[in-house]
Amino acid sequence: MTVRQLSLPELAEACDELGVASVGLWREPVQAYGLGAAARLVRDAGLTVTTLCRGGFLTAIDPAARAAALADNRRAVEEAAALGTDTLVLVSGGLPAGSRDLRGARERIADALAELGPYAQSHGVRLAIEALHPMYASDRCVVSTLAQALDLAERFPAHQVGVTVDTYHVWWDDSAPEQIARAGAGGRIHSFQLADWTTPLPEGVLNGRGQIGDGSIDMREWKGYVEAAGYTAPIEVELFNEGLWARDGREVLAETAARFMEHVIQ
Amino acid sequence: MTVRQLSLPELAEACDELGVASVGLWREPVQAYGLGAAARLVRDAGLTVTTLCRGGFLTAIDPAARAAALADNRRAVEEAAALGTDTLVLVSGGLPAGSRDLRGARERIADALAELGPYAQSHGVRLAIEALHPMYASDRCVVSTLAQALDLAERFPAHQVGVTVDTYHVWWDDSAPEQIARAGAGGRIHSFQLADWTTPLPEGVLNGRGQIGDGSIDMREWKGYVEAAGYTAPIEVELFNEGLWARDGREVLAETAARFMEHVIQ
Repeated sequence: MTVRQLSLPELAEACDELGVASVGLWREPVQAYGLGAAARLVRDAGLTVTTLCRGGFLTAIDPAARAAALADNRRAVEEAAALGTDTLVLVSGGLPAGSRDLRGARERIADALAELGPYAQSHGVRLAIEALHPMYASDRCVVSTLAQALDLAERFPAHQVGVTVDTYHVWWDDSAPEQIARAGAGGRIHSFQLADWTTPLPEGVLNGRGQIGDGSIDMREWKGYVEAAGYTAPIEVELFNEGLWARDGREVLAETAARFMEHVIQ
Repeated sequence: MTVRQLSLPELAEACDELGVASVGLWREPVQAYGLGAAARLVRDAGLTVTTLCRGGFLTAIDPAARAAALADNRRAVEEAAALGTDTLVLVSGGLPAGSRDLRGARERIADALAELGPYAQSHGVRLAIEALHPMYASDRCVVSTLAQALDLAERFPAHQVGVTVDTYHVWWDDSAPEQIARAGAGGRIHSFQLADWTTPLPEGVLNGRGQIGDGSIDMREWKGYVEAAGYTAPIEVELFNEGLWARDGREVLAETAARFMEHVIQ
């Protein structure tokens, strides 16, 4: 999604040129390209798919909307399996229209996970609940902290449900380091994503994630927390940023790889 | 600030017409009108000043900037005392330019409170640390939760330093109810403010607070929490909203009073 301006073949080629061996994919471009074709493309390119983003939106009250959401999440599980990734990231969903009941919405997520967890397991896929920044609590994700995400995940086996740690969403939270330790001890850090925090936030606050190094987050510090918690899987950089999307995608990918080396690895 | 389009005399008159007996003031319009004149105005109008907003911005590293901030906060204490309110609300400040050290910034706030607390006490004023929504963590306030605000406040006597509970900033936080109980038990709820959460957020996310009843927050629920924690002082409605500011101020004040009755009191 960081370079959504690139087609999947362009992405595979750019990754090859840069020596990037793993990539996180989103469902929409995969569906547009064709699931089977996308799976062949990444396999032929030797790319590992780290995660598929995203399932979720599990907070509907209306039975028909709820059934549709569950069906869509089962499809997402199948897509993840077809792409060869073991992790499906979940953005849980916001409050239904007119509702003010955060607790009720969180319980409906748990109900959905009870159905989806075993289904995912049967496909060799783990679900990774992503705590989204509290500024998304009403319209995208009522799970706002790692503690809340773990409270949900721990109702299920770790090989069915874990969490995504994304620096953009948790960097402000002084309890996040201990929650990362809790997640690691339970084998539940299923994904680790980076984006930097920059201001001013754009209208709608969706597409203002900062390039690594441009903002307020100490990336090495957070990498240290997940590594101390036992995380050894690939690290994703996921930037929703209108400015980056307006630029040449290969240039942005190269810049992102360079920033990753500078601010995360070195 | 909800009706900043009204001058202070217009505000006093509109409050009188609506039977609103108490008002929270901001420093800028008071300073523009003149502190002495403003104090006389509210006294003559029979208005109680609930709080003065705001002191704070205590995170500077640079010694000169730090000294200037402390001096400005001492003036804010004096202004609060002159207006007859016992509460100065603090917005603590964000990260200094180039800094990524949230912990260090929070410690500098504590250092400042050690100086300002006794100064406020000597003027009959209490400081009320306001936890601001985490979306302001980098540029306005590194204190993002009630737990963090209380961790700071509890280093000092309750009659020197407490907290402001603002629904807009804490509504997403499932640990906020227990933190309100903690604050109440310590006699540290120095102010309670309401604003509703509406989306999409505007660019810069400053002036999108929703009119009471328009958004995702159950106001009675939060009033219940602070009342159960022993809060009996006035409740403020503080809306930063370009749409409300563009309308007739008396109309907005009347609407706000009606919404308060409908969604908070009845």
